Amino acid sequence: MPKSPVRPERSAAAGGAKSKDPLAVVRRVMAGDRWAAAAGARLVEVREGYARTTLRLRDDHLNGVEVAQGGAIFTLADYAFAAASNSHGTVAVALDTSMTFVRAATKGVLTAEAREESLTRRTSVCNVRVTDAGGKVVALFRGTAFRKDDPLDAVLAARGKARQRGPREGAVAAPRRTGTR
Amino acid sequence: MPKSPVRPERSAAAGGAKSKDPLAVVRRVMAGDRWAAAAGARLVEVREGYARTTLRLRDDHLNGVEVAQGGAIFTLADYAFAAASNSHGTVAVALDTSMTFVRAATKGVLTAEAREESLTRRTSVCNVRVTDAGGKVVALFRGTAFRKDDPLDAVLAARGKARQRGPREGAVAAPRRTGTR
Amino acid sequence: MPKSPVRPERSAAAGGAKSKDPLAVVRRVMAGDRWAAAAGARLVEVREGYARTTLRLRDDHLNGVEVAQGGAIFTLADYAFAAASNSHGTVAVALDTSMTFVRAATKGVLTAEAREESLTRRTSVCNVRVTDAGGKVVALFRGTAFRKDDPLDAVLAARGKARQRGPREGAVAAPRRTGTR
Amino acid sequence: MPKSPVRPERSAAAGGAKSKDPLAVVRRVMAGDRWAAAAGARLVEVREGYARTTLRLRDDHLNGVEVAQGGAIFTLADYAFAAASNSHGTVAVALDTSMTFVRAATKGVLTAEAREESLTRRTSVCNVRVTDAGGKVVALFRGTAFRKDDPLDAVLAARGKARQRGPREGAVAAPRRTGTR
Repeated sequence: MPKSPVRPERSAAAGGAKSKDPLAVVRRVMAGDRWAAAAGARLVEVREGYARTTLRLRDDHLNGVEVAQGGAIFTLADYAFAAASNSHGTVAVALDTSMTFVRAATKGVLTAEAREESLTRRTSVCNVRVTDAGGKVVALFRGTAFRKDDPLDAVLAARGKARQRGPREGAVAAPRRTGTR
Repeated sequence: MPKSPVRPERSAAAGGAKSKDPLAVVRRVMAGDRWAAAAGARLVEVREGYARTTLRLRDDHLNGVEVAQGGAIFTLADYAFAAASNSHGTVAVALDTSMTFVRAATKGVLTAEAREESLTRRTSVCNVRVTDAGGKVVALFRGTAFRKDDPLDAVLAARGKARQRGPREGAVAAPRRTGTR
Repeated sequence: MPKSPVRPERSAAAGGAKSKDPLAVVRRVMAGDRWAAAAGARLVEVREGYARTTLRLRDDHLNGVEVAQGGAIFTLADYAFAAASNSHGTVAVALDTSMTFVRAATKGVLTAEAREESLTRRTSVCNVRVTDAGGKVVALFRGTAFRKDDPLDAVLAARGKARQRGPREGAVAAPRRTGTR
Repeated sequence: MPKSPVRPERSAAAGGAKSKDPLAVVRRVMAGDRWAAAAGARLVEVREGYARTTLRLRDDHLNGVEVAQGGAIFTLADYAFAAASNSHGTVAVALDTSMTFVRAATKGVLTAEAREESLTRRTSVCNVRVTDAGGKVVALFRGTAFRKDDPLDAVLAARGKARQRGPREGAVAAPRRTGTR
């Protein structure tokens, strides 16, 4: 897997003016997800309580029997879940997830749509549907997030510093700011 | 992500003598999982109703806040689940999974241990524990697999043919032989 | 708990003409659910891929801290799930369920709405929302059912015979016809 | 369903000396669970991070096809989960649960064993196995609890007052002290 390229938001986070728009902040936090990037997952849309991600299936998403591996599909769904859960301006971390695999997928673009079904002070719950290019359901996911008091833009500031020091050391220093797991 | 290298088992599957040892077969099926390989997950041990996998965390497993992304951890757990579920000589496909994220992980080697808790004619259920290098629980997973009548070594034969034709076309021709999802 | 009263559908099932309307059949199968009846759960509406059930909270639904016990809420949700899953004329049995408890409920009428999100030859998946009288989400449920080939009205015929013999013996003789779990 | 009988622990909680033994407290909190009592579930053993409950199947646990309803089995498992989760002296509330139904059960005594697999400051996770009299697995459950700071014996004091006022009013006044959901 290639090293993640330099991303514009990184230097912005480290040095620049912070947007007060919570959706701009969540987009920047999500853009720093290197595992989603490695998987080829893209955040297409995010608004309060909603997010949509897509992933074009590649050969390296397949398992030993030529269908998309569960972990690749989970990565796509979890990415949408994280974006929707963090869309309110404070940090939310994944706590519980469940996923039902309905149909094998082998190629084409998969879409995951996360809709928040519940929002309380401490938790939020999203349903996520993963569909194939023909609109057929590939998998159904539900995730519960624990909502912290930390503002989301503090994550960007911490990340900027962490990446300046190198990710491993930064991660050790700040393991609790798990904005999107 | 690099192209998956040529694997010895592939040509063996296509042309060679097949082992009658079900564990040898499941190892070969699992070795063909390109998404697990891309994630760096390794199958360390498999026996009937049990499997253990490991993954050394890398920078590209991390998300926007410098901790391992849920999809990376799921990939590791699902890989152990698939190996244990397919350890009886017939094809098992993942149907339902649930995962609780207990602790953020940032570096070091994670281990997933899958133990089959139930085995009936049509379904099997595994609990999987993901622990960090210090033995602390990072995540807990449970998966239900649907058990087919197809012998597992038929998967290898089909895969050999599919990969000769190229994975996309092969996958279209044989989407139902989802040995490990 | 009182003994379940004699139900009209029982004698009809044992002796009478069977309706060919699958929804009439599912209503009769569901009416024979004595645990749902003991809990006070009612099937209010069922159509293909959809069901709605209600339950008025009573003191004996409460746990040690005066809120509705998880099992009472699960019973309501599972009853809606079973009705929706069996709405296609063949037997479906619950395989996997997950439930997130969002808000404590203490009194009033709870409603569970089950919507089928996926239907394949062998499985179906429903999302169920449990809401309180004010429309607030109390719990979110997802269930996967395994679909058998058995027609649903055969369940009624078997049940008629089983209850003539007494439920325990009948159950031993026919443990596989688990129409609704 | 009969009205729940007067329980000795109630007057003790309202008026008497409180035990400092956390297991004595959790037993008393669990003894106040009227839904578990209505279902016939009994708490047989509880120690830190572990609990065992039993339930003798009755006719009124059965569904329309003469097997134990999912909600009856869930009630048993959830009761063990609640006891184990509240065994540390502070209040824990159920957040997420998942349950796989492996085998239909029709009669005899079911046992649920809850083992805590993870305990952090804010959450705990239990696996629960439900087995029949022959030791065969009937269902597998996992639950995540959110751990509050409230001491568990405060629940007993609040409950004593609530039941003096009548349960509905008490519940309205104190819906947040959800010791066992």
